[in-house]
Amino acid sequence: MVSRTLAPWRQLMLLALLPHLFLSATVVVARQRQCLWPGQASDDAGCLSWRVMVEANNARGWSTVPAQCVGYVNGYMTRGQYQRDLANVMDQASAYADEIADDADGLDAWVFDIDDTCLSNLLYYEAKQFGAYDPLAFKAWASREACPGIHPVLGLFTTLLDKGFKVFLLSGRDEETLGSCTAANLEAEGFSGYERLIMRTPEYRGQSSSIFKSAIRRQLVDEGYRIRGNVGDQWSDLQGDSVGDRVFKIPNPMYFVP
Amino acid sequence: MVSRTLAPWRQLMLLALLPHLFLSATVVVARQRQCLWPGQASDDAGCLSWRVMVEANNARGWSTVPAQCVGYVNGYMTRGQYQRDLANVMDQASAYADEIADDADGLDAWVFDIDDTCLSNLLYYEAKQFGAYDPLAFKAWASREACPGIHPVLGLFTTLLDKGFKVFLLSGRDEETLGSCTAANLEAEGFSGYERLIMRTPEYRGQSSSIFKSAIRRQLVDEGYRIRGNVGDQWSDLQGDSVGDRVFKIPNPMYFVP
Repeated sequence: MVSRTLAPWRQLMLLALLPHLFLSATVVVARQRQCLWPGQASDDAGCLSWRVMVEANNARGWSTVPAQCVGYVNGYMTRGQYQRDLANVMDQASAYADEIADDADGLDAWVFDIDDTCLSNLLYYEAKQFGAYDPLAFKAWASREACPGIHPVLGLFTTLLDKGFKVFLLSGRDEETLGSCTAANLEAEGFSGYERLIMRTPEYRGQSSSIFKSAIRRQLVDEGYRIRGNVGDQWSDLQGDSVGDRVFKIPNPMYFVP
Repeated sequence: MVSRTLAPWRQLMLLALLPHLFLSATVVVARQRQCLWPGQASDDAGCLSWRVMVEANNARGWSTVPAQCVGYVNGYMTRGQYQRDLANVMDQASAYADEIADDADGLDAWVFDIDDTCLSNLLYYEAKQFGAYDPLAFKAWASREACPGIHPVLGLFTTLLDKGFKVFLLSGRDEETLGSCTAANLEAEGFSGYERLIMRTPEYRGQSSSIFKSAIRRQLVDEGYRIRGNVGDQWSDLQGDSVGDRVFKIPNPMYFVP
């Protein structure tokens, strides 16, 4: 019968070899991971700085994610930090909504953008590696009515409706070509009960989002609505005329809309 | 004579032990560091989310750094990321300044805030562990004229003067009690050649920074100045009336001024 126990010196050698195996594994992991001191940024080629500049509206007019940040943006959007940031912003908005009382005359309003505010285009931008805006390809994507709803935003949307606010969805999407599929996509993802879906009509074609949305918000105010809150992923949703009492910037390092 | 060479089996044992020693050192380091996938946030108790919300003006009205983020903010301010973020914002401002031509009539202006824009209060806030605003303690600190100049901002300031812009320094500091020491501190740190140092006069005492600064900027515009750029570490420097053609938000997760 063969003994199942190794000779003592062989046991010793195996024990001595174990850390070598562990170290090899550590090196493989370390190649993919970075080790940081608390508060220290990862060696991210300045992409964290860039992302924060986008969110603070310091970086403007960029046409595409910087080449060295494509991997970073992908990681940010898909590995949890985007979801954490988004949830925190929605918490701020909910806390604010709890503080303000609507006047019960049906004129307290909130404005929500649609793309990457209510509906996510992450799958589309991920597939094209966050390249420059391509109107035809985007139209084809939007026509599929396959944009997933952004759940934390749906949560805020529902809360606001429950509280009696009127919610206006305001999008730079072309109404003629994308109106019905956008309405269907919103409905399928749970965004129903809003007051009005306002999209870009022919008279605003070619105008910047900021100018178009300012004009529409002025109209809402002229109709007597008080815009108590305004939620969007672009600063062009949140600046200009009649922006509302408070604005909430949803993170978006994928693209810039003027 | 004693041989200086170890017996071969002893050499082997030493070789086998080396990785154990290395592993122990790795464990000590790993206790202080965190290993991340690219784009993944550190397990920072939501402090990165919070910091980005501050910079994007989503988090408002906070009186002190959240307790769980004091270490994070300290690390952010002192271990390089703040300097990187600051340098990037100044690069954006310089690029913008290169694009705009002044009209050579001496009326193209920039407005700079002072505290944590031109002069740093990091030493003061670090010493008090980023606690709530304490007007008396802050006045004592400011009176010492010991605020270090913020070099990347001094770089922009100098570039703008060289280009012929008029630079106005606009601060909520009390003019009566802190006027001369602020001027001396600025001078000592290289901030000279500006057009005017404007501080809070008794008529604006008790008013928010936003209201005071809006009033002053309106006066500058009434005098004929065109505010081409506006640089501050607080959104209350950058919002309100006559904010200027473009604003630049300098990072500041240390305190909030309404």
